[in-house]
Amino acid sequence: MQTDEKLTGLRPFYVMEVTARSKLVEASGRSVMHMESGEPGAPPAPRVREAVAAALELPQHYTHSAGQIELRRALVDYYREQHGASVDPESIVVTMGSSSGFILAFLGAFGPGAKIAVTRPGYPAYLNTLDALGMHAVEIPVTAAAGWRLSAADVEAAYAREKFDGLLFASPANPTGAAVTREALKEIVEVCARLGVQFISDEIYHGLDYRAPSVSALEFTDDAIIINSFSKYYCMTGWRVGWMVLPERFNRRTNILQQNLFIAAPTLSQIAGRVALGEREYSEQQKAQYAVNRHVLAEGLAQFGLASANEGDGAFYAYIDFSRFTNDSLNFCMQMLDEVGVAATPGIDFDRRNGNRFVRFSYAGTRATIDEGLNRIGDFLRGR
Amino acid sequence: MQTDEKLTGLRPFYVMEVTARSKLVEASGRSVMHMESGEPGAPPAPRVREAVAAALELPQHYTHSAGQIELRRALVDYYREQHGASVDPESIVVTMGSSSGFILAFLGAFGPGAKIAVTRPGYPAYLNTLDALGMHAVEIPVTAAAGWRLSAADVEAAYAREKFDGLLFASPANPTGAAVTREALKEIVEVCARLGVQFISDEIYHGLDYRAPSVSALEFTDDAIIINSFSKYYCMTGWRVGWMVLPERFNRRTNILQQNLFIAAPTLSQIAGRVALGEREYSEQQKAQYAVNRHVLAEGLAQFGLASANEGDGAFYAYIDFSRFTNDSLNFCMQMLDEVGVAATPGIDFDRRNGNRFVRFSYAGTRATIDEGLNRIGDFLRGR
Repeated sequence: MQTDEKLTGLRPFYVMEVTARSKLVEASGRSVMHMESGEPGAPPAPRVREAVAAALELPQHYTHSAGQIELRRALVDYYREQHGASVDPESIVVTMGSSSGFILAFLGAFGPGAKIAVTRPGYPAYLNTLDALGMHAVEIPVTAAAGWRLSAADVEAAYAREKFDGLLFASPANPTGAAVTREALKEIVEVCARLGVQFISDEIYHGLDYRAPSVSALEFTDDAIIINSFSKYYCMTGWRVGWMVLPERFNRRTNILQQNLFIAAPTLSQIAGRVALGEREYSEQQKAQYAVNRHVLAEGLAQFGLASANEGDGAFYAYIDFSRFTNDSLNFCMQMLDEVGVAATPGIDFDRRNGNRFVRFSYAGTRATIDEGLNRIGDFLRGR
Repeated sequence: MQTDEKLTGLRPFYVMEVTARSKLVEASGRSVMHMESGEPGAPPAPRVREAVAAALELPQHYTHSAGQIELRRALVDYYREQHGASVDPESIVVTMGSSSGFILAFLGAFGPGAKIAVTRPGYPAYLNTLDALGMHAVEIPVTAAAGWRLSAADVEAAYAREKFDGLLFASPANPTGAAVTREALKEIVEVCARLGVQFISDEIYHGLDYRAPSVSALEFTDDAIIINSFSKYYCMTGWRVGWMVLPERFNRRTNILQQNLFIAAPTLSQIAGRVALGEREYSEQQKAQYAVNRHVLAEGLAQFGLASANEGDGAFYAYIDFSRFTNDSLNFCMQMLDEVGVAATPGIDFDRRNGNRFVRFSYAGTRATIDEGLNRIGDFLRGR
């Protein structure tokens, strides 16, 4: 099942093939341990759901295109409290998840044909969104040897090979779970400033940190575009609401784009987000479960001779080198699904060059899913 | 307050300036009759809200990127029942309102620099979205003398002047309320086929028809891209959910774009939309109120010597020639707001060439808003 598609250009997520086949497996009466999806198993906090239920009696009109002012003010408080950063509510745009934030960032801050650097492995929608918008990705490889962590030196070396206009970087990262230190992020911000590269900080996995508190680029600069979302830490994937913080010079164009391309983010989801910001204790409870899962998964995989390069700094993913077993990760994931009913994401979704040796497991599910998943993975590997 | 911006290129909605000032007027303790916004005053049907409330206890995960299969199947039923048209659920993509539908239609069916024809006056986001995506709008003027209705001859004449790749057309239309007859739509579809122009049918105001049932392009062809939304007829503007129906050849690319650009539409909104499709009786009750408002507004404006060119075939807008009073519609709307507290939308939002003589009124609000709005408009005009 080797792909013959190019290393660049618009491609589907191969995990969709895993998901489609998992539905067939389940329809045949067999169970599937779902470790492919980066989605918390829990709903949002009770107070979030209560606020939404209370709002249902009223018509939910379009909000201000930049988002409800109450939500933007709550986000100002969030940055002050969590990051000691001062943000103007006029520089915040509430988005439809991080997805529309990327579109607005690319179209708002860059011209046609712009080159944006991203890490490899990385989130596949980065590449496809850039391609769809007529822009170009420049991939900066990060290595297992470096714990998948990007450094300022990596950025500088990549720029010396091929100049780029922007750097889009996530810490914690998908699919590797890698997070850089406070000092390393500061150096990346500084090298971008020196090179004249617009920094875009994808902070969607903020809060989901197991070693040190998440660091926002806003702690060092007001010249970065920040993209964040309620999806992960606040258990709101299907609610499709996130936000961006803009350098002031991008405010006008980005707001016009938001008005025209999207009108506004979903109103109920904005209400939910505002309440969710005050319910971090609930999110920390969820994270405590992921932390246990992370440990159990790492220990279990280690018993099969498999290790994550950074043992998971953050997010809820383990990106595992399976080269002892496969050099065709999609086919491997399909076989694992068919034979033992474990769904995982093939590494080629995240790295078109080397991802065929890797598989990503999400540990956002229940402990029972992790335990049974490990049993089945063990059965699967013993036959190999 | 004449704008010095070009006739092409990215522009804000000027109505936003009206909205911003209306908030100041209201903050000063004066009331504003809101006739600027194309939003139903009512919430969605009770059963819709009940279904959403019931779903709140569960986590709302990402759905299939094309939308929940239950919703897509309900849309298949909708096309069979309302339009006698047969649609494959695999050709439906559930979108974030019509907004993301336009983006997907443009990027999914056209290449960089494509030319898409639209009517002038028309929905301003068409122009700005095309501009943002590096495509070009070709404006086809429609005239008050023709009731603002586009004809196949108009399309053919415009194409002879300047070739284009696609035609994006709404019936009923914003801002004019114009709807073409069944025969006229069939001719437009046919002329597009003959010219090799991809037809995109914006059917967002379907159901809001006062003369004859709305006609879908799917009644004549399976080669049109259909864009629709739950926003208007189903009273769900802030829910940000709509859908598109695709010619089969665009399915794969559009689905990959949807996965990458948006992931999926909001889950609760999809649940709401599925139930709303079965609650058309509620929507018809709302429409009966708009129909009364439409009549009252037309009669009232006629007393001031003002008339809509087509008396409103559909939607909930009256697009009124105010050339007796102004050739600067933004300034006029600001003065009307300041002096008598009526908010309306300046015509320049819909027509960068001739819109300075026009004002759009929405009659989606309450009867009381229309009555008091007319009183105030009378006071305002008597001073002129």
